[in-house]
Order: sequence, then C-alpha cells, then structure tokens
Amino acid sequence: MSAASASGTFKASDLQIDFCPPENLKMKPAVKDLVFGRSFTDHMLKIFYTDQSGWGQPRITPLQDLRLHPAAKVLHYSVELFEGMKAFRGVDDEIRLFRPHKNMERMNRTAARCSLPTFDGDELIAILKKMISVDQEWVPHTESSSLYIRPTLIGTEVFPYSTLNKVHPKLGTPVTTPYIGGHWKEQDNTSIDWLIKPTLGVQRPVEALLFVILSPVGPYFSSGFKPVSLLADPQYVRAWPGGMGMMKSGSNYGPTLEVQRYAEAKGLHQVLWLFGPEHRITEVGAMNIFIFLDKGNGEKELVTPPLDGLILPGVTRDSLLTLAREWGEFQVSERDITMTELVQASHDKKLLEMFGAGTAAVVTPVGSIHYQDQVINIPTMDHDQPLNQRFYKTITGIQYGRIPSPWAIPNQ
Amino acid sequence: MSAASASGTFKASDLQIDFCPPENLKMKPAVKDLVFGRSFTDHMLKIFYTDQSGWGQPRITPLQDLRLHPAAKVLHYSVELFEGMKAFRGVDDEIRLFRPHKNMERMNRTAARCSLPTFDGDELIAILKKMISVDQEWVPHTESSSLYIRPTLIGTEVFPYSTLNKVHPKLGTPVTTPYIGGHWKEQDNTSIDWLIKPTLGVQRPVEALLFVILSPVGPYFSSGFKPVSLLADPQYVRAWPGGMGMMKSGSNYGPTLEVQRYAEAKGLHQVLWLFGPEHRITEVGAMNIFIFLDKGNGEKELVTPPLDGLILPGVTRDSLLTLAREWGEFQVSERDITMTELVQASHDKKLLEMFGAGTAAVVTPVGSIHYQDQVINIPTMDHDQPLNQRFYKTITGIQYGRIPSPWAIPNQ
Repeated sequence: MSAASASGTFKASDLQIDFCPPENLKMKPAVKDLVFGRSFTDHMLKIFYTDQSGWGQPRITPLQDLRLHPAAKVLHYSVELFEGMKAFRGVDDEIRLFRPHKNMERMNRTAARCSLPTFDGDELIAILKKMISVDQEWVPHTESSSLYIRPTLIGTEVFPYSTLNKVHPKLGTPVTTPYIGGHWKEQDNTSIDWLIKPTLGVQRPVEALLFVILSPVGPYFSSGFKPVSLLADPQYVRAWPGGMGMMKSGSNYGPTLEVQRYAEAKGLHQVLWLFGPEHRITEVGAMNIFIFLDKGNGEKELVTPPLDGLILPGVTRDSLLTLAREWGEFQVSERDITMTELVQASHDKKLLEMFGAGTAAVVTPVGSIHYQDQVINIPTMDHDQPLNQRFYKTITGIQYGRIPSPWAIPNQ
Repeated sequence: MSAASASGTFKASDLQIDFCPPENLKMKPAVKDLVFGRSFTDHMLKIFYTDQSGWGQPRITPLQDLRLHPAAKVLHYSVELFEGMKAFRGVDDEIRLFRPHKNMERMNRTAARCSLPTFDGDELIAILKKMISVDQEWVPHTESSSLYIRPTLIGTEVFPYSTLNKVHPKLGTPVTTPYIGGHWKEQDNTSIDWLIKPTLGVQRPVEALLFVILSPVGPYFSSGFKPVSLLADPQYVRAWPGGMGMMKSGSNYGPTLEVQRYAEAKGLHQVLWLFGPEHRITEVGAMNIFIFLDKGNGEKELVTPPLDGLILPGVTRDSLLTLAREWGEFQVSERDITMTELVQASHDKKLLEMFGAGTAAVVTPVGSIHYQDQVINIPTMDHDQPLNQRFYKTITGIQYGRIPSPWAIPNQ
C-alpha cells in the first residue's frame, strides 16, 4: 500500500483547558487499593478530526462520557487503536515519562494502517505533559506505582457508507464496501478528489476522535514476583503474515478474550500464542516474550522472536534488547524459536529463564508452559541473580530517577 | 473451548416503547436519494446486560446518541459484533423478513466467541418485528428498496481490568490480562465464582449493550447490473485457521479498510481475499463468492469455497446453494478453488460466471480480477440467461412476496 498521506496535525500551543470544578474533584484511592484501569483521574483530553477541517483544537476537559451516534464506525467495524504508557514520580519527586516517542511512532504507524488520521507525536507528548501536570497529584507518591496513560483513536463517523452519496466518478457505480474517502489517480498521474470536498485531497476517515484518559495503577505484583503459567495451544492463532499482528489496534484484542477465559478455566494465567506447523513462539498478547538459554559451552543466549509482523513491537522489548546489547555479556538474538527447541532445552536443563516484557509489569517471570500433554517447568526465579530481575531493576531505576538515562523524559 | 454458558435471555413480552414525539419525526428521504446506511428511522432498540442482573428490559426509544464511558471496552479492545438483515415491502404491501433465524444463530455464535452474552434469537426476532411495525412507513413502498436492520452487540464496561480488584482465588496472583469475569473449576468439578458476585456464576462480560438501528436503503445498483472489478493481492490476508474469519465481529472489518482504499486507488471496486501458498479464493469481505464453470462435457459446476473457518457463513450463500441443489441442473460444490484453477478455466473459456453473494445486493456480478500481473476478464453478464440473474430473480421474488417460500417471514 502507498504511504499514508499526511493528515496534518494538532498543536500543543492551541491547547485549551476546561478545569474540573474543585467541588467535583474525586477522592484519590489509597495506593494499596490501586488496580489497573479501575480508577481514572479528573480530566481527559479530546481532539476531534474531520476530513473537511483536519484536526481540531486539543481540549482538556473534566472526565466525561463520550456521546456517539449508534452508527459510529468504531462500534461496528473496530476502527480503533490505542497506546499504553506511564508517568512515574521519581525518588526526587520529579515526574518522568518513559520513551514516549516510541509510543507516538507506533500510534502513527497503527493509525496509517487503520485508515485513521496521523499527527505529530511531539505535539501529543507536549499535550500529555500538560495534562499530567493538571492531574499531577494523581501520579502516586510511591515507587512501583505509576500513572497509566491511555491514548485512544477511534473512527466516529456514521457508517463507512455515509459519505457515499455519489457514484464513483470513474467506475460509474456506487462504491458499496466500507470506504472512508479517497481520491482517484488518472492514468496520466494527475489525481482528482471525489466524495470528499475536492480541495482537501484527503484519504483519511471523515471523522475521528483522539482521546486520552489517565489511570493511577498500583504495583503489578502485590505479592512479589510470583511466576505465571501460560497456555500454549496451537489451535488458536493471534496473528498471521499479511495481517495486523504488529499493530496496536483493538482488533488484535477482542478475539483473544475468550481464549484467555479458556486458559483461566484451566487454571492458567495467560496465553502464549504459537504460529505455524513448527509451533513458533510469538508473544503473550499483553507482553512480548524472552527466553534465556544456557548454550552449554559457558555461553548464554537471550532469545526473543523477531519483528516479523506477527508480534507487537513493544517498547519494553526494545529497551531490554538495547540494555542486553550494551551489557555485552551474553549473546542477544532476535530469532525464531519453536516449542520443540524450548522442550528440548528444558529437557537438557539449558532453559534458564523465560519472562514477558511489557509496559504494565516491565518483566513478568514465567514459571510453566502447558503445551499439548506436557507441562514445561521453568526455573526462572530459582537462580541467584535472575536476568529478569536485573532488567526489572535497571528499567525501574531509570523510570523512578535513580539511574540517569535519556529514556526518562522529564514532565516539563 | 468449552461451550458458552447460557446468558439467559430478554423477553419480547417485556418490551417497552417510548414513542418519538410526532413533532420530532423525521422526513423520509425520496427513494431515489436512498444510500446504504445514510439515513436512519425514528426509533432504535436498546437492551442492556449486566453480569449481576442478566439481560434488562428491551426498550424501543427515539433514535439517540449512545453515552459511553471513555474506557468502555468496545472503544479499546473491539469487543463488538453485528448482523445485517433486511425487511421488504412486498408486491401485496405485506412486510417480510428474509430468513431472520439464520442471522440470530450467527449472532449468538459470534457472541459466544467474543465473550459477549447470548440470548434467545426468537425473542429478538419478535422484538424486531414490533420495531419494524413502529417504523413501518420507513419500509420503502418500492420494490428493490428495503429497510436494512443492524443489530449490534458491544461490551460497554470500563476496562476489562475493572472487575479485577481481587487476586485469583486459586492462582494467588492478580489476573492481569484482559478478562471479563469467570469462575474457577475445582478438581472435584465443583466450581466457585470469583470477582463477580458469587451467586450468579456467569462467564460473560460485566456489562454489554445490544442495540438495533434501522436504515432505509435504495436499489443496490442504480444503473443496472454493472459487473465489479476485484483486486486479488496475496500479500494481504483477511483470516487464518485458528482465527475468527467465520464470525461477524467488528475485528474482521477494521483491518480491511486500508486494503480496500488501496484497491480503489488502483481503480478497482473491491478486494478478493486469497489464502495460502496456492492462493485459494476465500471471500470478498462484504460478500461470499461463487464461480460457475463449464466442465467441458456438457456439465456445469457451481463452486463456492467451503465453510472452513476462513469465510463468513453468509445467509445469501446458503440460500443460493439450497436453490441450486433444489434445481438439480448442474453440479454444486463447496470446495477449495485456487487462482491457478481460475486462471486456467479462464484461459480454456470454461469460466462462465463469477459473482458475490450477500445481503446488500443479493448477487453482484464480477467482471474482472486483477491478480499479480494479469487481468482476468469474466463474461459473467455476457450470457443469454446468466445464472446470477436467475438467483437474483428467485431470491428477490421470495423477498417481495411474488414467490411463496418459508424463507419469507411475515412481519406480524
């Protein structure tokens, strides 16, 4: 597909703030009661987009319900994407973001693939900083808690068919499939716009809404690093070549809920998604996956599946790979790894650690994999100094201001 | 996965109707101005579901915006599904539905796969009939126009994580992935409920909303049966074994929009989705596909891809297969067919017709397929009595009351 045409951008300098009246400010939950995504701060951000006028003025308002026409595209055709980021209150009381530009890059990549409008990520980061300042008392004053940031972009216009009040100027027939505006390229490479007002030349949705909500979140593991168990059932497939597995779109999540329920009904925590006849390991839906192997000759290898289009390019994944390569103490491989190799390594006592990597918990130790008739037990936390804990301490050290790093962006 | 537990049902006998005030009734568009999904009737249906209390009272209200919390699951994780049906005003002025039970069966299958609550399809049909009666003047008084019915089911509760205020009773750790309530089966096969109030034992979402909107639609082809052109590009893949390609969930549609845009930028109407190294023909996203072949020995064969999990089990697809088998005049095959076979048949002048089948247009003749460097022209409409037109006349004859059939359900 051709590159997405520019959708212009909104500007942080246009930001308008409608403060929540003091009498409506909510009580902040105690840190011990914080649960992921259960409570929300006092404000939200909304930026509307229309094909006719482009991005509108960014507005911070009190948190409020969205009003959507029941034919809004997001409710029928999953025209929706999101990001997950966090703000941390450091040991020095400074608030920091962690590599927010990575989230902005991925959000724009996903938007282009989802026929949603793109924007300048630096502008959204500047707005998020302002938003976090407005709700700064919601950034927990306790290490290991943080403020979760959920940027979301949805297609809001009535039915994709709603703009199709004309026949296609070249095809001579009505355009009858989900369609969201476009232009027609003549054989001589000139182009004419159609369906949409001809001066804009857009290829984006007719209407969209970018909104951001904030949620204080507690320690991911309230009872320490208890390893999780994974169901690896090859009959369920999350993503495939030619699909959208590398995008952070809503469509990658809805289909997994029932499989997750199935795993939990078996007493397991999460799903390890496999792919292909070789049962390649891909990811854990909410996390990327890392495997630490003893190579047998005194060498060790950290393996994670490559960015082949089947897995989400996680920010934490990238951070762990970068750290490991800086350390230079063991081999670091982005390569395919199959269940057969994993089973063999376990049998040979070469499987040292396995852990998930994601924004929610940084690293999540894996204790066992339930695969066909086997249970593969993994001694992830049974070493003196587990690699996953070294990663955890380094990343959280950067996030909470103990370790200086360009990855920690002051909220100023 | 285990069969979905029953979610109970709502009852048509509980239906409450809040009529739109006469002064707010909208002007009905002229039939010549009707476009798919552009105008909506005066009323809508809403039925709320919660885990605690099950399905609520069905209510017909004036058409109005939905209010959703910005963390509603449908906006982030594509927890959403829909159906497409029609009501027809017959030549005798009676209003009829076409095989609505097929839509109800598919809607419940999709709901179970999407972790959304199921219901008794007969009850929804009874409610739809009442709703159509309320808005009966919106059923166009012209043959070839009809009233499109869009039942939709969305997950509305705040974040999937919102119910997770406790650790898992057996796992001893917080449940951290998208999860929507469940119960835990003890090894002795007794079960305990958790997270949700323990008296209900549900495995369904905490909150959901079933709503229905109605839209009068015009003739699908305003300028006769002009054949459409299809892009068959193997680099884009709609569905995969182990995925949800056979479900009418929103997640099957959002990822196709940008590929559709790409096809239209090439001057083509729609996308023919291929699968696998043999480039098997699957479906056209909004339609199933049929191919009519000359077998060379005086025999003819109607081919459509099998229900192998990759394609939507269309109601029109089933209707055409049933009619063709009743006629008994040619071979009827649900089998795999590849682009190689299609190209060879075209070369040998054995490719008689190709057409899409769906609720929107009944049949849509295909005139050409653009595949790699080839353009395959298909003489679909160049025969004296095209098979696709015989199908069209039979199905619309049933829908508009000219041909008696148990498929036409009176709206009474």
